[in-house]
Amino acid sequence: MQLSWPALDRNQILERFRKTRRLSARLCEPLAVEDYVVQTMPDASPAKWHLGHTTWFFENFILSKFESGFEPFHARFNFLFNSYYESQGERVARPARGLCSRPTVQEVYSYRNSVEEHLELLLRDLSEEVEGEVLALLEIGIHHEQQHQELILTDLKHCFFMNALRPDYRPDCAPASFGAAAGETRFLSVPGGTYEIGHDPSRGFAYDNECPRHAVLLQDFAIASRPVTCGEYLAFIEDGGYQEFRHWLSDGWARIQAEGWRAPLYWEQVEGTWKIWTLTGARSIDPDEPVTHVSYYEALAFASWAGCRLATEQEWEIAADRLCPAIRAGNFLDQERYHPARASQAGEGLQQMFGDVWEWTGSAYLPYPGYRPLAGALGEYNGKFMIDQMVLRGGSCATPADHIRSSYRNFFQPYQRWQFSGFRLARDA
Amino acid sequence: MQLSWPALDRNQILERFRKTRRLSARLCEPLAVEDYVVQTMPDASPAKWHLGHTTWFFENFILSKFESGFEPFHARFNFLFNSYYESQGERVARPARGLCSRPTVQEVYSYRNSVEEHLELLLRDLSEEVEGEVLALLEIGIHHEQQHQELILTDLKHCFFMNALRPDYRPDCAPASFGAAAGETRFLSVPGGTYEIGHDPSRGFAYDNECPRHAVLLQDFAIASRPVTCGEYLAFIEDGGYQEFRHWLSDGWARIQAEGWRAPLYWEQVEGTWKIWTLTGARSIDPDEPVTHVSYYEALAFASWAGCRLATEQEWEIAADRLCPAIRAGNFLDQERYHPARASQAGEGLQQMFGDVWEWTGSAYLPYPGYRPLAGALGEYNGKFMIDQMVLRGGSCATPADHIRSSYRNFFQPYQRWQFSGFRLARDA
Amino acid sequence: MQLSWPALDRNQILERFRKTRRLSARLCEPLAVEDYVVQTMPDASPAKWHLGHTTWFFENFILSKFESGFEPFHARFNFLFNSYYESQGERVARPARGLCSRPTVQEVYSYRNSVEEHLELLLRDLSEEVEGEVLALLEIGIHHEQQHQELILTDLKHCFFMNALRPDYRPDCAPASFGAAAGETRFLSVPGGTYEIGHDPSRGFAYDNECPRHAVLLQDFAIASRPVTCGEYLAFIEDGGYQEFRHWLSDGWARIQAEGWRAPLYWEQVEGTWKIWTLTGARSIDPDEPVTHVSYYEALAFASWAGCRLATEQEWEIAADRLCPAIRAGNFLDQERYHPARASQAGEGLQQMFGDVWEWTGSAYLPYPGYRPLAGALGEYNGKFMIDQMVLRGGSCATPADHIRSSYRNFFQPYQRWQFSGFRLARDA
Amino acid sequence: MQLSWPALDRNQILERFRKTRRLSARLCEPLAVEDYVVQTMPDASPAKWHLGHTTWFFENFILSKFESGFEPFHARFNFLFNSYYESQGERVARPARGLCSRPTVQEVYSYRNSVEEHLELLLRDLSEEVEGEVLALLEIGIHHEQQHQELILTDLKHCFFMNALRPDYRPDCAPASFGAAAGETRFLSVPGGTYEIGHDPSRGFAYDNECPRHAVLLQDFAIASRPVTCGEYLAFIEDGGYQEFRHWLSDGWARIQAEGWRAPLYWEQVEGTWKIWTLTGARSIDPDEPVTHVSYYEALAFASWAGCRLATEQEWEIAADRLCPAIRAGNFLDQERYHPARASQAGEGLQQMFGDVWEWTGSAYLPYPGYRPLAGALGEYNGKFMIDQMVLRGGSCATPADHIRSSYRNFFQPYQRWQFSGFRLARDA
Repeated sequence: MQLSWPALDRNQILERFRKTRRLSARLCEPLAVEDYVVQTMPDASPAKWHLGHTTWFFENFILSKFESGFEPFHARFNFLFNSYYESQGERVARPARGLCSRPTVQEVYSYRNSVEEHLELLLRDLSEEVEGEVLALLEIGIHHEQQHQELILTDLKHCFFMNALRPDYRPDCAPASFGAAAGETRFLSVPGGTYEIGHDPSRGFAYDNECPRHAVLLQDFAIASRPVTCGEYLAFIEDGGYQEFRHWLSDGWARIQAEGWRAPLYWEQVEGTWKIWTLTGARSIDPDEPVTHVSYYEALAFASWAGCRLATEQEWEIAADRLCPAIRAGNFLDQERYHPARASQAGEGLQQMFGDVWEWTGSAYLPYPGYRPLAGALGEYNGKFMIDQMVLRGGSCATPADHIRSSYRNFFQPYQRWQFSGFRLARDA
Repeated sequence: MQLSWPALDRNQILERFRKTRRLSARLCEPLAVEDYVVQTMPDASPAKWHLGHTTWFFENFILSKFESGFEPFHARFNFLFNSYYESQGERVARPARGLCSRPTVQEVYSYRNSVEEHLELLLRDLSEEVEGEVLALLEIGIHHEQQHQELILTDLKHCFFMNALRPDYRPDCAPASFGAAAGETRFLSVPGGTYEIGHDPSRGFAYDNECPRHAVLLQDFAIASRPVTCGEYLAFIEDGGYQEFRHWLSDGWARIQAEGWRAPLYWEQVEGTWKIWTLTGARSIDPDEPVTHVSYYEALAFASWAGCRLATEQEWEIAADRLCPAIRAGNFLDQERYHPARASQAGEGLQQMFGDVWEWTGSAYLPYPGYRPLAGALGEYNGKFMIDQMVLRGGSCATPADHIRSSYRNFFQPYQRWQFSGFRLARDA
Repeated sequence: MQLSWPALDRNQILERFRKTRRLSARLCEPLAVEDYVVQTMPDASPAKWHLGHTTWFFENFILSKFESGFEPFHARFNFLFNSYYESQGERVARPARGLCSRPTVQEVYSYRNSVEEHLELLLRDLSEEVEGEVLALLEIGIHHEQQHQELILTDLKHCFFMNALRPDYRPDCAPASFGAAAGETRFLSVPGGTYEIGHDPSRGFAYDNECPRHAVLLQDFAIASRPVTCGEYLAFIEDGGYQEFRHWLSDGWARIQAEGWRAPLYWEQVEGTWKIWTLTGARSIDPDEPVTHVSYYEALAFASWAGCRLATEQEWEIAADRLCPAIRAGNFLDQERYHPARASQAGEGLQQMFGDVWEWTGSAYLPYPGYRPLAGALGEYNGKFMIDQMVLRGGSCATPADHIRSSYRNFFQPYQRWQFSGFRLARDA
Repeated sequence: MQLSWPALDRNQILERFRKTRRLSARLCEPLAVEDYVVQTMPDASPAKWHLGHTTWFFENFILSKFESGFEPFHARFNFLFNSYYESQGERVARPARGLCSRPTVQEVYSYRNSVEEHLELLLRDLSEEVEGEVLALLEIGIHHEQQHQELILTDLKHCFFMNALRPDYRPDCAPASFGAAAGETRFLSVPGGTYEIGHDPSRGFAYDNECPRHAVLLQDFAIASRPVTCGEYLAFIEDGGYQEFRHWLSDGWARIQAEGWRAPLYWEQVEGTWKIWTLTGARSIDPDEPVTHVSYYEALAFASWAGCRLATEQEWEIAADRLCPAIRAGNFLDQERYHPARASQAGEGLQQMFGDVWEWTGSAYLPYPGYRPLAGALGEYNGKFMIDQMVLRGGSCATPADHIRSSYRNFFQPYQRWQFSGFRLARDA
């Protein structure tokens, strides 16, 4: 597949580039230098690495090809900041990203500044011949950095939680309240039939894994008006959900024994009361807010306990397209709440499809019919991970609002739960 | 889901029960007592355990419920021979099955005889009230034992291969030739449209995971007339297929590095020539026979190299139903070849869809729309494994012919390759 | 160091060879074929392997060098039965000894018979030129097989204990009683001074690690009249010994947490009562018999709790030479009790220095001053293990009586406890 | 054992306290904030942790007991900075010390300042009643911090070496030359007989593990005039020393295979030439300087190849006391070379016994006869590690000169080599 989106405006994209770059730095403002360095589990990366890697992406995929007389900022940064691109050479082993004290944070910011300056210059004098390709790469680089903005937050959250001092990330953002308590969860019906899902090329940017748009056949189904809440999940816990194997996949049951899971990540029982630890501090559980930091195993076990199932990604996308038009109204990173919020009571349609929590679907992350990876090195971006992962949809409170769309496919292993992952119930009609 | 198949004939099923039980014993005839005991990897089990476990299945799910005055053959056999049924209590850890020298092989055969006698008696005096349920359980127990017959062979194959003395299982079955060399592989087109797949209840027995029958929407596609052959796979190897990351899933690439895979399991390069080790002895590779003992990773890498893909399980089933009506003509366990054979040249349709090699599909093993596990303990049979596994179709040279059907869904982790697993190419029309 | 012991009598040694070989077979008489095969932990080996390896020792170190026209019994047996001799080529990885179903037990006995016959023929026609060396090798081979006789028993004990059916090895040998209860433990004083320890070449055979005899300087000390008993050890347990870190080495404390040790191996608490599992069956603990199956960590923790220490190996040997002349009177394998027994009340000196339980000393297994390993391949026998192991002395109820001597140095890692290992207290004068 | 050294002078010890504290800070001057945080292997610790832990030692063992109205600097620092004292409560798992971004480096320095101020105040108003105990604890705390100064350097060395950017610690200290090339190694004879070793209480401070002074019996031996050099070690490498199992302990042979060791740590072959990486930069090997960063396994293998052995710790101490009186003249941390240097040619006695490299001895780290650990919590300081470690003697180029003495016993596992560890040959007379 070739990079090709509807004609991109150079100034517009440059503005988005600047805004995105500023946001990454802004997300790190509350950090001490030390907080940029550590890696508290193999799945997470140090903030310093995220800042460097997103910069390397622009340097390596744009500057190195289109800048005349290109010189890398540092000869070893390709080794240090290549994530998983086999085509781009050797790299630091993923679990060893937190073992690198150098480059310093300041050096990484110098790297960022330098690459930004070179890119600005490159764009100023861009020949028409390559403009389309460069802007397309810039576009993908912006979206790529947005993904890492979410990871900066989730990885820091894990880092701070593991620390005996339990520092807060943004205590100033702790909410008085996120709105009135929502009413009951409703189930909305969607009639079966043939639908189209996947990226519509006329709508702008998408990753290759959302393509091509194609027909799917759905049966009648119903989907919950909002994600499962903490209150509902607590009922599952209190009903012995973690002790009853019948709800669990075999691998999930083994996992919760091995890890001693008895609640979502970041829940802690203090003197008999469940507390939740957030980026804005510790507090009591709000029964009306969506449960988050659950694995696919836990989502499926809850669904089994509730006599429901998860929506497939096809169902989810069709429901979103038809019953939830207002994507940007969600609780995204832009709101700076850093945590899922209660559903508002307004509206007849689906609530919280976008933002708040990523929603586990019942679909494995596999290629769409007719899928072709991007040509060249960026073909490694998505396609090579299409095994043993499940699809999540809709973005979270840590996702930039303009990053998400209804066809967006996120994917994680079924045991992972350090993302803002929740779920929504569905059932056969 | 309730157990319910078209009315089963008591005598007919009893005859099949006896035949199946005899076959298990017959498969073990070439074994020394010592060969029943060892477990050469966690995925495999000792033959002794298979013989005991299949017997426990009948004792535990039929005798213990329907025999009046039931006494277990031995108080600890439930612990020793329960495989993975949480509902049935504690059990030997899977990787520790080969650490049990007792019960002796002779005691396991006594166990088999005793349970068979009790079952015969039970069936003789079966009340009408429970007949349906008992016969249904017997049916599932027979199919269950057939699955383990295949495993007895594949697990022994691994055991003998790992042994420095390389004993042969059935050298007397080594073929002079399996038929004339086949011609070229052709691609057969299947038009897109809405089809039905899954088990048709009027056709007799099926596992719960094949249900319910449901509509699927396919796009035009073409499917290869036969599985990929050893000769074709050798070309992939010789073209550096195992050295070129672009063909591989990320997990697959990591796996082949970690394990040092450079060819299918049981292939060995001896003085520059590839030899293959089979249950009937070591010999040169026959370029015309299907390649087998490959992982999903290897199947997908080959497909990528060949510019094709794997069929989805929906495509596979529709193609089989329309283009390959003669299931029983395949190379099954019944033929006692213990190895895939060359395709015959006769016929215009698909060859070797059934028997020879299990065929990896591009589909994750997930529930069908509307899937319900069997009620009770047997609900653990299939459903709880629906994660991180890929579907294989069609049976192999180690599968009893009357065990297989077009809707049959086998499933393994993508790295596993000790089964007779091969693959067939497909492509978009 | 060269092999050289006082002149060996050909007939005498041949008689001992035959007796030793018969004993190995006799020890296996209670076994089912299956019991010869399995390996329940990496430190243990299957009985079949012990029988083959001890035979390989004679074939490889004697027949292959001194038999004219030597042909190995089987080309792969060197691979299968070499234990750890790098000089003798590749071999089965130690933890994989239990994965070999072949050769069969019967084939191993054929191997034994064949090698014995060849050795008898060799000895019949032995030239004077090589007689000394062959007899010396035969001598070492006999002692080597005696070591493996002890291991056959301890490895089987572990195998049977791990088995859910808990088979007994020799229930017919279960004792009514092993004698009257012993009196109090006394401490016997040994005056400090310069002593000689190590093998006296005039006394016959010894391993290289017992040489050379050399002077040591001891301070006044006192040594307990008998090993610590089960009753005494139970007091340590009941006093919270396994919960109090102050008694433990750091590594030992980590080990008991990681493994959940709360008592010696083979002790089980059944409804509040401690039971002990032996080769002759399960029974209550006899408070007067020596505690066994304890690690060095446990021995040292007990000593710390009791305000004592362990004897050094130098102290042990001097005490044995002076205060316990009657080695052969101990409870050895020859008595066929298969378990340590109560001390008899007779005598003023040290009791149970020989037989019953191996006694952990406070000495690391290191070379004596002037130590030289045997020349050639047998230099790998002892010397290369001189690190991270502690010395045990005195033999056990599983040691053949004519295998042991006061200078004999056994050695194990401090965490190992599947041997009949106990300990005796000492203290500064 | 009670803390008791010859009367300590309050002002003198306070001066040493201040000097030691300043040195720790000085050692960290070349560091970026990021360099304080990471932990590149479980054996190493972050510099930040060392700074905090040495401070905790004073706070916890002195202030908390003797300061009236004591308040800990921070309630969680006991958890964060306790190393291994079970008696002092829970603590961060050792391999997780590098996962703590907080407290910040600045907070740790505040902690240091605060504890120092409190200690100064405490000492100013110290009652006579407790003066002896407080000064004794201060003394041990100073020595404790000196040990960690060495670790700060060796842990940083590992951290910088693992980093792709290979930062230098003190490039300004790189030597032009460390003196003329030394002549041949000589062997000096020491006559056998009864000697005394261990700490002489009249000489001032020592750790409990150096006590009590006691008699030992030595045989005639000879000891090398200087440690083995890089040139000599290179000859071993080039003679295939790492490929010849006969030189190696079994565990050592397994280790070098598993880790791929082919030279000391920090040696790298660049285009056929061996380079060495030091705290002052990379350079060619100086054949005349002592080899360092070798494990006990490598030391013993070299000795075997050279037909020698290592000295026992008893031999080493007697030789040092008699043949090398000038301890303080060595190449210590005070010289700020950060690397072992060539032996000077002057003198007839032993060279480089103190400073340059720690010297592996052939002695296991075990208690001396009559050893008693310190009473109370500090009894955990040394005694609980007396298993599976070998003794090293003499200090290194990273040891403060006034930290070392001839009776000093350092100890490490035989596979460890990130310390400045070398060795000296010995042989029987």
